[in-house]
Amino acid sequence: MIKASIITIGDEILVGQTVDTNSAWIASQLRLIGIKVAEIISISDDSVLIKEAVDRELSKSDIVFITGGLGPTQDDITKKTLTEYFNDELKMNARILEKVEGMFKSINRPMLDVNRQQAMLPSTAEIIENDLGTASGMWFRKNKQSVISMPGVPFEMKGLMLKLIPLLKKNYPLNAFYHKTIHFQGIGESQLAHDIAAIETACRSNGISVAYLPSPGIVRLRLTGTLDQQTEIDSTLNQLQALFPEQVFGFEEDSLESVIGGMLKKNSASVGTVESCTGGAIAARIVTIPGSSVYFKGAVIAYSYELKEELIDVNHQTLVEFGAVSQQVIEQMAVNGRQKLKTDYCIATSGIAGPDGGTDLKPVGTVWVGIASARGVVSKQFQFKHNRERNIELTVVYALNFLRRTMLEHENKAV
Amino acid sequence: MIKASIITIGDEILVGQTVDTNSAWIASQLRLIGIKVAEIISISDDSVLIKEAVDRELSKSDIVFITGGLGPTQDDITKKTLTEYFNDELKMNARILEKVEGMFKSINRPMLDVNRQQAMLPSTAEIIENDLGTASGMWFRKNKQSVISMPGVPFEMKGLMLKLIPLLKKNYPLNAFYHKTIHFQGIGESQLAHDIAAIETACRSNGISVAYLPSPGIVRLRLTGTLDQQTEIDSTLNQLQALFPEQVFGFEEDSLESVIGGMLKKNSASVGTVESCTGGAIAARIVTIPGSSVYFKGAVIAYSYELKEELIDVNHQTLVEFGAVSQQVIEQMAVNGRQKLKTDYCIATSGIAGPDGGTDLKPVGTVWVGIASARGVVSKQFQFKHNRERNIELTVVYALNFLRRTMLEHENKAV
Repeated sequence: MIKASIITIGDEILVGQTVDTNSAWIASQLRLIGIKVAEIISISDDSVLIKEAVDRELSKSDIVFITGGLGPTQDDITKKTLTEYFNDELKMNARILEKVEGMFKSINRPMLDVNRQQAMLPSTAEIIENDLGTASGMWFRKNKQSVISMPGVPFEMKGLMLKLIPLLKKNYPLNAFYHKTIHFQGIGESQLAHDIAAIETACRSNGISVAYLPSPGIVRLRLTGTLDQQTEIDSTLNQLQALFPEQVFGFEEDSLESVIGGMLKKNSASVGTVESCTGGAIAARIVTIPGSSVYFKGAVIAYSYELKEELIDVNHQTLVEFGAVSQQVIEQMAVNGRQKLKTDYCIATSGIAGPDGGTDLKPVGTVWVGIASARGVVSKQFQFKHNRERNIELTVVYALNFLRRTMLEHENKAV
Repeated sequence: MIKASIITIGDEILVGQTVDTNSAWIASQLRLIGIKVAEIISISDDSVLIKEAVDRELSKSDIVFITGGLGPTQDDITKKTLTEYFNDELKMNARILEKVEGMFKSINRPMLDVNRQQAMLPSTAEIIENDLGTASGMWFRKNKQSVISMPGVPFEMKGLMLKLIPLLKKNYPLNAFYHKTIHFQGIGESQLAHDIAAIETACRSNGISVAYLPSPGIVRLRLTGTLDQQTEIDSTLNQLQALFPEQVFGFEEDSLESVIGGMLKKNSASVGTVESCTGGAIAARIVTIPGSSVYFKGAVIAYSYELKEELIDVNHQTLVEFGAVSQQVIEQMAVNGRQKLKTDYCIATSGIAGPDGGTDLKPVGTVWVGIASARGVVSKQFQFKHNRERNIELTVVYALNFLRRTMLEHENKAV
């Protein structure tokens, strides 16, 4: 199997000011074409360390992907270092120079000398043109091994990787394997592991690997085997879905918001939100999906008591008597919100995200979620036990899955 | 200088299903106490690779931090592997067992056998108790070197790191250096580099390192020197702030939303949002700040034409004549929203996030932002050129900085 290493270059990662999101994205693309990432390393903008790292990774992998250090600023030394490493020299590349000049023209900005330097490129490397920025990709070869350098800016790197994928397929004999991921919401990692121990053991004894990938409120489970184990993996996932109908919301690239979008479209239904503690995070999550304007109409964020009354007609007496974080208020928010927003479904949230605002009876993490529809309103209380950021994120995913299950129930009843 | 390496263990990172956010966080904490991270590597859940990586990193660093592979599931092998590596053995730790039992009691869940196994710990390692989960931290020592293993769940790892910091200070002679970061919004990396070339060269010639950290719409600049260069670094940053008053919004841990929160509090002012293309993302960003309920009252997300008219009284004729993405509509959204939400400031957004909906006159990425206040309304058009996700993110940061500058102008006029 063809193996790859990923080297990210830049002090910003080592001092912790930038999270390396590039490596995960590159790895996921390589996985799809059957290239296994053996190691990911992050090192400093230092030519000695860069050369050492390239040496080391070439001793382990067939292809070394490098991101970062190609910017126009003084701390960017990757291009110079790799050119030295491969005994090459930098020459002005007329085609790239023209392209970079064109870019600056199109945005009506003067081209600076540092930008011009971006067209100085190693003479023997294959240049992969960057359509989204001024730093080109460079593909160096050493016998059958490759070192591929890309800029660290995520969207530029992604554009280059999409160009590289077909070239990699041409240059290397790639044997794909089969893997599929199933997503659970509302069951913890250890509870799930306990509940599916027998299934998991059966997989492993057949050489199918099982990996748990937890994130707040969600556990993804990935099964990986050979291509001829596809049927076995698929039927195992179907079995899991049948065992956990409330928790399993999708597979592979599905997200709660994409699954909900699909269901709403299928049923020609619309959704809106009335949010308090989540402050718009559910609405913002829904509109990340392209084309969501078909089913998402709008939302009201009523953070204060006053706006809960004024914008969404929550009864003053109910607020005083039961408080904003209560079943009585959440149901009014959902039902009235649905009318105001004129949607088929309305999600409402109200809770104490923290760090302040908790009481003995309603500690930080107490959250009510309501879902109103033509069939009435359903509501649920959740008790999270985390910090503000996590309590908000958990409310978002629990609320979205609550909507999914409510819609599913309606679909089943309709049949 | 004490050097550290970070090893993250888990196939989920190498196959690209999980982004490694832990390493950046650990590195940022270590930087604060003067420990330099020399290398970050990600490897598979494989005992041979784990042992090799520990060997290699111990040849470079004084302290090796390891995250991941401590979960209760079958694919977690870090504890067993490290115990072997240090010729230790696993024994039941009575104190940890009691603690784990207590945790399950407090959430009313049965304790499973896999959870009980979490109290089996290496007999000679120092156990760092995990108050947020069942996997303990383990500190192995080898002469003056340390290998410290922590769970990969971010909030559990963070809890353990905060316990480790004072212990590291006791165990190692730490020499801090001085570094400070300044944040710019609305100027690109290469333009900034061009504009401050002389300042940057002066810094470098004095041994002060300068690093650019771009993220969508924002460039952070980090200056690092020795402790006795503090005055020089601080005055350079003041000079930069004076040169770029519109762009510089903060330093160090400041975010646009925290800076705006501080300004609103200082002026006893409130804010609300009326969002279309951002779908609630600005409101959600504002409420990430603890205590934001003091100044954030609410928002209206009017995604459809109909709700723009009904919820926020945008004139039907204006919508038909100029379209939703226009100066006329954005100013009505901001002004009417301010009245509805009864806030001192109101941010309004309307734009074409993409991928669909663009026209020749208003291509994808065309965005209007308006800010209404007691002094009237100001508005601006932006032309972004990216994908949906990035166009939304850029709208959020440009809108927040537009609010910041508007408030600043009002403060200055008031003086």
